[in-house]
Amino acid sequence: MAAEDAKILGTWSSPFVMRTMIALNLKGVEYQMIEETASPKSELLLKVNPVYKKIPVLIHANRPVCESLITVQYIDEAWSSGPTILPSDPYERAMARFWGAYIDDEWFPAFHGVSKMKGEEARKASLERVLEGVQLLEGAYLNFSKGKPFFGGDRIGYLDIAFGCFLGWIRFKENKYGIKILGEDKVPGLAKWAERFCLETAVKDLMPDAEKLAGFSKVLAARYKAIAAAATAQT
Amino acid sequence: MAAEDAKILGTWSSPFVMRTMIALNLKGVEYQMIEETASPKSELLLKVNPVYKKIPVLIHANRPVCESLITVQYIDEAWSSGPTILPSDPYERAMARFWGAYIDDEWFPAFHGVSKMKGEEARKASLERVLEGVQLLEGAYLNFSKGKPFFGGDRIGYLDIAFGCFLGWIRFKENKYGIKILGEDKVPGLAKWAERFCLETAVKDLMPDAEKLAGFSKVLAARYKAIAAAATAQT
Repeated sequence: MAAEDAKILGTWSSPFVMRTMIALNLKGVEYQMIEETASPKSELLLKVNPVYKKIPVLIHANRPVCESLITVQYIDEAWSSGPTILPSDPYERAMARFWGAYIDDEWFPAFHGVSKMKGEEARKASLERVLEGVQLLEGAYLNFSKGKPFFGGDRIGYLDIAFGCFLGWIRFKENKYGIKILGEDKVPGLAKWAERFCLETAVKDLMPDAEKLAGFSKVLAARYKAIAAAATAQT
Repeated sequence: MAAEDAKILGTWSSPFVMRTMIALNLKGVEYQMIEETASPKSELLLKVNPVYKKIPVLIHANRPVCESLITVQYIDEAWSSGPTILPSDPYERAMARFWGAYIDDEWFPAFHGVSKMKGEEARKASLERVLEGVQLLEGAYLNFSKGKPFFGGDRIGYLDIAFGCFLGWIRFKENKYGIKILGEDKVPGLAKWAERFCLETAVKDLMPDAEKLAGFSKVLAARYKAIAAAATAQT
């Protein structure tokens, strides 16, 4: 498949965008990355994702696919090259979808709340929910992997991608706040899994290190500050 | 497949439970309904859905499947009997999943907000979002159905189930508040679709009429009032 057939509208720092990139890498699909600056949102983004106006958008043969976990499933079904990403058994597929939705609907909002911008009380409450969440995900990991290295068994699959995309940001927050989210004492399975995941061929060139994310985080904070100041000046 | 192999933990008034029932009906699967009273939540519910503690739960061969749209996909994949529920084309499947998620994540919270319990201002704002949502869903319906009667084409499929399950409650709110959500002037496609959907064999015995829901709504309101009074008495 020629590179021009698959384009991703996104940016390197987004874990959700990384899901799409990892899935295409697994399938051996070349793609073109179109950098979305997001401030203001590009006309292309508004056109291809008018409902949510969010990245990533996969544009495959000029047709957009939105929402990262839906996109990962689409990539698995649209390209028969490479390994399958979802489990083949219907029950395991349902469980993979369940935990994928849990990560996005429950775990990520808590993880997002682990930030000083939200205030110290809210940050602590969020961290507690994040730690409860990784306990649940440790259980899911043990169930799925059955002693093998990944959620997907011998190779990475849907849940590896769904949770693994956050590892750069997890390390960044662990460093920044002096906390441990994937501690070997609490979640030994996930702690080892995280190391293996980052070394995978489809992943290793994509995973941003904590230092790069720290720099980006400062740019983001300055941008939010400028937006807030502009809003205050207008009122 | 014997009836005891498939059980639904749920209740007749829940649109999310109805999704599971319609999907099993489409596949010609007999199932046992286990009524969840929800106040307090049953031990079975806490055991089979410890993460969300919500209905419906499909229990198939003693294994629980939670989250109604994940369950509908599971039913489609686990039973090869009957028609397929999701589209066969990968792109159409992705679009069906996209709009299914839109219904649950965006449309339903707005629809839930169309209630006097939330206050008049909030009710009006919610109604506006509901009406914007049905406009988007009208567009999706026209794209999917391509002049045929259902989102699924000649027969009902994933999005018919995902949105159709709300028709009883839509009619109830239309009656109660003197509003029109699926008005033939605004969304002519969906207005006609709604009539057809309710007449389908897999649906017609399940769809509660607005009057029955009005009675149930009064019971619910009394229950919430009692819970609020008990909470006030404790403080």
